[in-house]
Order: sequence, then structure tokens, then C-alpha cells
Amino acid sequence: MKKLFIVGIGPGGSGCFTKRMIECLEESEAVVGYTPYLEYIEMYLDGKKRYSTGMTSEIERCKKAIALAKEGVTTAIVSTGDAGLYGMAGPILELARDEAIEIEVVPGVSSNFAAASRVGAPIMHDMATISLSDLMTPFDLIMKRVRLAARGDFVLCFYNPRSKGRRDYLEKAFQILMEEGYEDSRPVAVVKDALRAGERVRLATIGSVDFSEIDMKTMVIVGNAKSYLSGEWMITPRGYDL
Amino acid sequence: MKKLFIVGIGPGGSGCFTKRMIECLEESEAVVGYTPYLEYIEMYLDGKKRYSTGMTSEIERCKKAIALAKEGVTTAIVSTGDAGLYGMAGPILELARDEAIEIEVVPGVSSNFAAASRVGAPIMHDMATISLSDLMTPFDLIMKRVRLAARGDFVLCFYNPRSKGRRDYLEKAFQILMEEGYEDSRPVAVVKDALRAGERVRLATIGSVDFSEIDMKTMVIVGNAKSYLSGEWMITPRGYDL
Repeated sequence: MKKLFIVGIGPGGSGCFTKRMIECLEESEAVVGYTPYLEYIEMYLDGKKRYSTGMTSEIERCKKAIALAKEGVTTAIVSTGDAGLYGMAGPILELARDEAIEIEVVPGVSSNFAAASRVGAPIMHDMATISLSDLMTPFDLIMKRVRLAARGDFVLCFYNPRSKGRRDYLEKAFQILMEEGYEDSRPVAVVKDALRAGERVRLATIGSVDFSEIDMKTMVIVGNAKSYLSGEWMITPRGYDL
Repeated sequence: MKKLFIVGIGPGGSGCFTKRMIECLEESEAVVGYTPYLEYIEMYLDGKKRYSTGMTSEIERCKKAIALAKEGVTTAIVSTGDAGLYGMAGPILELARDEAIEIEVVPGVSSNFAAASRVGAPIMHDMATISLSDLMTPFDLIMKRVRLAARGDFVLCFYNPRSKGRRDYLEKAFQILMEEGYEDSRPVAVVKDALRAGERVRLATIGSVDFSEIDMKTMVIVGNAKSYLSGEWMITPRGYDL
């Protein structure tokens, strides 16, 4: 049977590797992924064909993985986090849904939960994830989502918060939060490279965030109206009577 | 050092067990959790003290785990999914933040991504999770969040969608979606017991969902305006030009 695994490897540190992920990598004859992601799983790649390309060649990688599977080469294509959120599961299935290939999506630890775990329990309750990248989503729709999620008092997880080409989108998002009545003191967790080498954790508030420290590998979590900071933790109450 | 691990075990099937989760269970002398959750990790519990209670005794379990850790017993308290979303990380930290205990939150595969993986790529883009349990959240706030998330065209993941005491909350949520302009044909994935024994997967639309099949162990994922069904898959496009 022609097989293609779409594998979420989690944040990249080996602690979040799952049993099924490892089985699938071991069964694969070829592994396709963005170069740094393949480095995270180096220990499983001995003797396998590797195909890696740069950051913006996602679709090239998807097509290569599908082509390999169609040739009968059992193949894994890897995403960080969970492959089903801003990852490779979507484009692969869009491209391969009519192909005679057995496809398995292997879930992973998503980046927002990896980041959250390093500062305690910042999410805990109803939550929205918003990617601030406007490569494939209109800027106005992104900011509309920020505003509506703020009105609903969701915990907010910002993916791709800041890049060289989009230096001020997170500031613009925070401006919307202020317009919606958020206080300067609303807690914010800023976690770069969660659970992998070079991890850096910051607790702050909307009024005190250092935007210059934030890049594409950073997760920014803004609490809901009940979230608070306590020592090394950011906590969003679930609502129990304790 | 007095140690307490707050461990997300993922959906329960061993495929989503992570390396760090297993290390922490192995290091623990006592494990605390809801009875069925301990059964999922039975293979790691040999020779350990176990403390389990029923579904509604979460806080009793948290207090027991903290008390054990304070006595110097290395302890793990387990949640399914990720412990940081509707799980045990919040109440444990609320109760133990001032205690001299080393606490580690161990992230897991969250229930929405486990469910999503079984139907392809239904999430993929900006997403909101909403728990329909009103035990600790006012009903009106829950439905307000449903309405705002719908207006933002977020992919919606409904946790705790239906119980004996709340038979019609999901129908009420769907009614709000219709009021917000959702068509009958909007895709819906209904996944019960994802990636564990007894798994049952249904693809449907808002107009065709069989509510009677849905219970507290079911994840309901409603697509955004661009989501579609294709054979055994539900796909939300990421937005690539393919």
C-alpha cells in the first residue's frame, strides 16, 4: 500500500515526541520537511532519504511527498506543533485527496500548549488562536478576528506574531485590545522556542511587553479578564470554587 | 526536592503518549487521576500509589496531589488531552502557587487535534475552542462566545458538547450559527473517543448532524466558510495557491 504520514512533531524538543510519531518515522523510507525541522528529528532519520527545502517552499515539499508516496515510497512529511493547525495536513489533503494513497495524520503537541506549559496555566478556558501572518489571510480579516475574540473574552494565542516584514502587527492587535477595553495590566506570556534549545520565557502585561524580543518563533498568549500573574506563573482560572 | 507533575496524557490511546509524560510517570511515586484516565496509563503504574476519584471530584484530587507532594512524595496528577485546556493545570497552580513544591506542567496532545487528525485537516486556520459546560461558566457567556466566534469565521471546536443535563446546548449553539448566516451545508466533524478504544467518526453538516449520538466524550468541529468535505476527509484550506 502506498503510504503517506503527515506528522506533527510538537515543538521540536524530544520530550514532546509521541509514540505514534516515532513509529511512523521509523516505518518511513523518506522524510520531507523544512531543514531545521529535520534536524529536530535527526535521530530517526538514519538511512532514510531526506528532502528538505526552505521556509517558503511548503507546497513544493507537499508535492514531493505526494510524488514519493505515489511511487510506493513510504513517506513522512513533518510539521512542528500539530500538523493540523497552520501545518501541512491541509495542503497535503487538498493536493492528494483524490490519489490512491493511504494518508494518516499524526497529531502532535501544538505550539500554544507547549508555550503555555512553560508559564503554568495561561490558557485553561475558552481560547482562540490567530495567526498574524497576512501572507494568505487578509490583514483586515485578521484584525476583525482579534476584535471579535477580544469581545468574547477568549484567551488569545497569537501565532507568527512578528517578522521583519510585519514588525507592527502585534502592536496593532494590542491597540485593538485596548480599544475593546483591555487594561494595561492584562497578563501576557511571551515564550520563544518553547521546550527546545534557546527557550526564553517572559511574563509581562499588555502595557509592558517588549515587542523587540518577539519573532516568528515566539508564541504570545494574552489572558482573559480573570487571568493573573503569580510569581513565575500566569494563571487563568477555570472557575472552580477552591 | 518536592515535586509535582501535572501531566496531559493526550486522548488516552498510547500513540499520543509523549517521552516526557512517560519519564514523569516513571519518576513519580504516586499518581492521582480520574479512574478511567488511570486505566489509560495502567502500564506505567506498577508499584506506585494510586489515588482516583469520580468525575466531579477534581478539586479533591488536586488537593490530594498537592498534599502528597508536600509530604515529599513525587506525584503526578493526570488530565486527558492537554492539562492546560479545561484540565488540571489551572486549579493545581491556583491552589499550590505559594507552596514550596517544584511544579512541572507536561503538555499533551489536545482533544481537538486528536479528533481533527481522524478526519484530515478540519482546523488548519484560526480556531476557537468553546466548552458548552455551564457548570462554571454562565450560559449566556458561552452563547455570546459562540456568536462572536461565528462572526469572526473561526473554526469552532466544541468541548463537552452534550450531557444528560444539557441535552440541547449544542442545538442552541447551532441555532446561533444559523442566525449568523451559516448555511445548512457547513461541514461538521463529530468524533467520539478519538484515537482510543470505541472511536467513532462522523462527517456531517450543520443541517444533518445527529445530536443523539453526541456525548461528553465527543468533539464537535464546525468548519469555517471555506471548509469542505471530500470523501473521508474534512478540509479547511490554509490559503495556499495550489
